[in-house]
Amino acid sequence: MPADHGSRRAALRAALASRDLDALLVTNLTNIRYLTGFTGSNAALLVDATDDEGGEERTVICTDGRYLTQVGEQVPDLRAEIARASAATLIKSLPTASAVALESHVVTVDEFAAWSLLAPDARLDPVPGLVEELRMVKDEHEVGLLRAACAAADSALAELIARGGLRPGRTEREVGRELEALMLDHGADGISFETIVATGANSAIPHHRPTGTVLRGGDFVKLDFGAEVGGYHSDMTRTYVLERAADWQRDVYALVERSQKAGRDALRPGAEVSAVDGAARRVIEDAGYGELFLHGLGHGVGLEIHEAPGIGKQGTGTLLDGAAVTVEPGVYISGRGGVRIEDTLVVRERGPELLTLTTKDLTVV
Amino acid sequence: MPADHGSRRAALRAALASRDLDALLVTNLTNIRYLTGFTGSNAALLVDATDDEGGEERTVICTDGRYLTQVGEQVPDLRAEIARASAATLIKSLPTASAVALESHVVTVDEFAAWSLLAPDARLDPVPGLVEELRMVKDEHEVGLLRAACAAADSALAELIARGGLRPGRTEREVGRELEALMLDHGADGISFETIVATGANSAIPHHRPTGTVLRGGDFVKLDFGAEVGGYHSDMTRTYVLERAADWQRDVYALVERSQKAGRDALRPGAEVSAVDGAARRVIEDAGYGELFLHGLGHGVGLEIHEAPGIGKQGTGTLLDGAAVTVEPGVYISGRGGVRIEDTLVVRERGPELLTLTTKDLTVV
Repeated sequence: MPADHGSRRAALRAALASRDLDALLVTNLTNIRYLTGFTGSNAALLVDATDDEGGEERTVICTDGRYLTQVGEQVPDLRAEIARASAATLIKSLPTASAVALESHVVTVDEFAAWSLLAPDARLDPVPGLVEELRMVKDEHEVGLLRAACAAADSALAELIARGGLRPGRTEREVGRELEALMLDHGADGISFETIVATGANSAIPHHRPTGTVLRGGDFVKLDFGAEVGGYHSDMTRTYVLERAADWQRDVYALVERSQKAGRDALRPGAEVSAVDGAARRVIEDAGYGELFLHGLGHGVGLEIHEAPGIGKQGTGTLLDGAAVTVEPGVYISGRGGVRIEDTLVVRERGPELLTLTTKDLTVV
Repeated sequence: MPADHGSRRAALRAALASRDLDALLVTNLTNIRYLTGFTGSNAALLVDATDDEGGEERTVICTDGRYLTQVGEQVPDLRAEIARASAATLIKSLPTASAVALESHVVTVDEFAAWSLLAPDARLDPVPGLVEELRMVKDEHEVGLLRAACAAADSALAELIARGGLRPGRTEREVGRELEALMLDHGADGISFETIVATGANSAIPHHRPTGTVLRGGDFVKLDFGAEVGGYHSDMTRTYVLERAADWQRDVYALVERSQKAGRDALRPGAEVSAVDGAARRVIEDAGYGELFLHGLGHGVGLEIHEAPGIGKQGTGTLLDGAAVTVEPGVYISGRGGVRIEDTLVVRERGPELLTLTTKDLTVV
């Protein structure tokens, strides 16, 4: 299924019209990619919403000469201008007295000041997060890419384990590099973020960068990694025990596993994000380990590895049908080791759709 | 040689004092790394400059609980606070009536509005680029890391060629992956950016992403890549011909080679950046190919792959002693092929210090 950028722009136009805005100047490159398919490193997009009929004709993307060919290929359905200072170029062409929203969560103080001088007769309105709000709900094209990204990660992990990649004596860094190479072998366009491989006491550090630390029998090894396909990111964590599992490891693992299941079960359209976090957190708190669950439960995932909605204790808002999110509780025992289990899922009326399919049963490798 | 973050903060304090500013709230994470060594993903730093003596004691870094251990290890010489909303926490503690600079090229419109409410009695001054200006001149610690990064890239390229990695029949993507893996083998902590491998007609696209296109005898293959060591980035481009070089390829190559040498020769402290660009560009223009040199001559490089100073036609300002920059002219003949040659160098009184040592003689592989 091809991406339907026109429908996304139409949805944005409706959001703008409901706020009495004539246009949005999009300068966040990820939002530009979402709305047009353009993947260059410099662009601005003016989405016109003055009326439904002519909006598409008056919408224009601007990029520089390096992307002359690319913008024609990737965005055949919009008018393109070529100029180095993309945003300034579009600002200068604004009709007098129009009300133009700027992405105030992205636009810097300096940009706002400079652009205000370029368009003294337009009303520049700081409006944060309009496109990010649309991006929370994934269309089927996007879910397809997320599925492909998660599949590449699942396959890579399966092959890593099958070929004995998690054996004692290897370093965290070696394991990370092999897992990343395997994701590319299994169809990833890139990796979502630097792979976390954390073994032994390092597994108690939530965001540990791989080091020369050696994997040893009896230790936890925690892998947090993801693949990128067509711009969409997967995110998954699995924690293994090497050679033999001690009772305390089985206990911690079982606790996190139950918490993660409670979090997944709480995912449904309309659920308060703080309640979803609470469902998973309560399991860990009730076991007396609440202080050791050091972070929020999860986050939205899509064109960015971290995007809306955040799922945390202090989070506000509810989950929408079609949101793609992670569920990733963890318990970290400083100096001994930690366990995190994380899936990527899509929120659905009929129950969450699990995209990361690797087993979560305790596995001794 | 260890990094001397204290001296960097002292230089910043002098810059602040000369502008009658009491402090700078640093929120750009790269600038925080430069000033403190902290590498976490969330932090704010308030550099106090009210007087030389007590400034260091009143300077404070704030990060969240995930980095409790890390901030103590990486920044033992400064007071640390732990809070999720790092910048807001520091803003709230500002003394009444102090003049605090904000990094207005980084701070968003939304952040500025929110922070202004948190500190109604302080004067928040938008001041762009203070730390970036200091970062232009590299100290010996930084040059050491740049040298190591460039060496990793040089060694990786040498091994790629020695093992026949640039042979006809391979795809751009295969070559890119191998070169990236070799950089890690040769001591890189990471790669600077996604490696460009562009062969045949693709070599005429300045920023081509590697595809399944197959290397063929008689074609150009252009490699633009870099290694990262300790946060510092190398940047190098070499263009090869596969198996046999045609006369037009030798001519284009020789032209770009001469242009690149002219650009390197123009690097000296005090040179106008537009004049450096002009020195290289003139060679290509005089040969009648000016229209085919589609971009600026180069850019600063360090903790970011692209940083100040830009070296382009419209650039302003002069090169400083100790600036690290790239020199990378190119000629791109659409549909046929292109050549770019790029080095990373340090501007020195005695003449530029070349960090990327791989030969630039036309090499047929």
